[in-house]
Amino acid sequence: MADIPATMRAFVLTGHGGLDKLELKTDWPVPKAGPGDYLIKVHACGMNNTDINTRTGWYSRSVTDGTTAEGGSEGFDDAEEGAGSWGRQGIGFPRIQGADVSGTVVSAGEGTDPALIGKRVMIDTWLRDWDDPLNSDKVGYYGSERDGGYAEYTTAPARNVHALDSGLSDAEIATFATSSITAENLLHQAKVGDGDVVLIPGASGGVGSALIQLCLRRGAVPVAMCGASKADAVKALGAAAVLDREPEDLAGALQDAVGRDTVDVVADVVGGAMFKQFLEVLAPRGRYTCAGAIAGPIVEFDLRTFYLKDLVFTGATVVPPGLFKNLVGYVERGEIKPLLAATYPLEDLHAAQTAFLRKSHVGNIVISLE
Amino acid sequence: MADIPATMRAFVLTGHGGLDKLELKTDWPVPKAGPGDYLIKVHACGMNNTDINTRTGWYSRSVTDGTTAEGGSEGFDDAEEGAGSWGRQGIGFPRIQGADVSGTVVSAGEGTDPALIGKRVMIDTWLRDWDDPLNSDKVGYYGSERDGGYAEYTTAPARNVHALDSGLSDAEIATFATSSITAENLLHQAKVGDGDVVLIPGASGGVGSALIQLCLRRGAVPVAMCGASKADAVKALGAAAVLDREPEDLAGALQDAVGRDTVDVVADVVGGAMFKQFLEVLAPRGRYTCAGAIAGPIVEFDLRTFYLKDLVFTGATVVPPGLFKNLVGYVERGEIKPLLAATYPLEDLHAAQTAFLRKSHVGNIVISLE
Repeated sequence: MADIPATMRAFVLTGHGGLDKLELKTDWPVPKAGPGDYLIKVHACGMNNTDINTRTGWYSRSVTDGTTAEGGSEGFDDAEEGAGSWGRQGIGFPRIQGADVSGTVVSAGEGTDPALIGKRVMIDTWLRDWDDPLNSDKVGYYGSERDGGYAEYTTAPARNVHALDSGLSDAEIATFATSSITAENLLHQAKVGDGDVVLIPGASGGVGSALIQLCLRRGAVPVAMCGASKADAVKALGAAAVLDREPEDLAGALQDAVGRDTVDVVADVVGGAMFKQFLEVLAPRGRYTCAGAIAGPIVEFDLRTFYLKDLVFTGATVVPPGLFKNLVGYVERGEIKPLLAATYPLEDLHAAQTAFLRKSHVGNIVISLE
Repeated sequence: MADIPATMRAFVLTGHGGLDKLELKTDWPVPKAGPGDYLIKVHACGMNNTDINTRTGWYSRSVTDGTTAEGGSEGFDDAEEGAGSWGRQGIGFPRIQGADVSGTVVSAGEGTDPALIGKRVMIDTWLRDWDDPLNSDKVGYYGSERDGGYAEYTTAPARNVHALDSGLSDAEIATFATSSITAENLLHQAKVGDGDVVLIPGASGGVGSALIQLCLRRGAVPVAMCGASKADAVKALGAAAVLDREPEDLAGALQDAVGRDTVDVVADVVGGAMFKQFLEVLAPRGRYTCAGAIAGPIVEFDLRTFYLKDLVFTGATVVPPGLFKNLVGYVERGEIKPLLAATYPLEDLHAAQTAFLRKSHVGNIVISLE
């Protein structure tokens, strides 16, 4: 293989806080592939809300004291050092973030298969105890609980490293992991199948645009919600209809757009003030599934609407094993397409995150390491 | 069979409103068993929140405009005539309420088995389209969408009429139907099994006391919550621990009582201000199931607590077919015991409802027709 240098460029998170906590290093030590790990040369790494929420410590506040950080981003002002990962444990600093890697295996640690060296790979972002893979006290997230892909090299556990055969570019491959596996898990938890009408708030984001495509491959009918400026792009992904982001009368908007005033499923990463209407438009025995709350996590909930309609809610965070391998197959077979909004070189990570937070893009923003 | 008179005593609901809308009639026509129905001599009929909520029109407000009626009872002031059943359709007046009948079949309508005449029976309270039995647009409730048991005679569809062999009194038999089938459905929807720790708010009520017993027969561990004056009675039902109704620190109270600060399931008919703590004490992948909201239906909901712990919520209103037959078996085999708080003669229905709403009883209040 290519010579592996001793140091590398890397963006390092030094603590919870603002963008100033993300520091570019040019002489960071290249990690070694320990037992059970591969060393991977990173070509591109996609950006996610997880990066922002972990940096600001947003997650920790739901677990520790329930206070609200509206918007789930840049609301940081008071989280404690080391207390703010997505899960229960704090993360350690310095930390290299970035979960959605497209790379090439360059070295195989003890106990791994060296045949993977030279192969192009995607990384399953969920770090698991494989004897108890859904136990959220035993999981971590790639780029949070261990170093990720905003660097020239990274390591990952062998079971998380999936070779793939694809004609897509590295930046395109790096659009998929977090958003698509989150979307697939939402549809999996809500048991979405043929003919289900699925409402997708936040349809222009990474998860939303993946939801549209993943609904279609299941034979479901995706009904998107997004800002007017993004409606054409979202429609082009195959949404059966595109509604406004915050309609005053969601049932009426549905009736006008698809000829019925109810949906079978709401696949949500938005929450906020629309939550009440999401429940109102769910058909009896409808399913609400959620993996985020970018418009605000504290919502008003009418238990009557919930129980009198026999609704089923599923939280969708820890992804069951097996789903990522399926996803790699979808990518290889072109069943889902990348939606690459922009690429930025590693040096411009601050600018990339600023653009990401502006939310004027459709799809995924990717950091290029080339 | 015994001679069937032409008229009977019956308590008739004349419209939505207060207790004055419930009028005692002494010359109400005895119904006839139409095709597919049995005519049943009523011996006793148990009382439920459904009676109150249907009378006051509480349910309709969740479906039509989402306004709050705190407490779910006696908050009536503005529901429209005919608009207030548990479901989407309004009910017709005059209506005989009362769902939990213990009676004897006295006449068999066309197409039914006359062998049931003379048999002691319980009535499955859910009126269904048997070709589509979970469709809530096609279900009704016995004593709401058709006349029930606060009268000397009633009719019921043959498939809802279950013969039983039991040494219990009629008043004891009349404690079971609504509360026990609601409780069994909660445990069914939440997939409660051996070893699950189940938190039961409102444990002294009809559903709550049934939940304790039905948890035990599944091998689960019921942890009850109720007012201090009822703790001994609830403990005697077999609760592993009895907590205060509104502890400031529910996790701490659990830790003290059962040695862990989480539960696997919350089986709720209470809702209200405690809802936030119910979610906080649910273990990762815990289940919240709900069939009522007597302490207030509008609750504050932190979507992060929900999705980051992969929680599953199930509304539990329309009961799947098959569960009632199971319940009759539990009663016959003594696997659940009646908890008869008091009996009142039909004439004293107003006094019985007043006592019911005072909530100082433990278990079920029953109207006797003898």
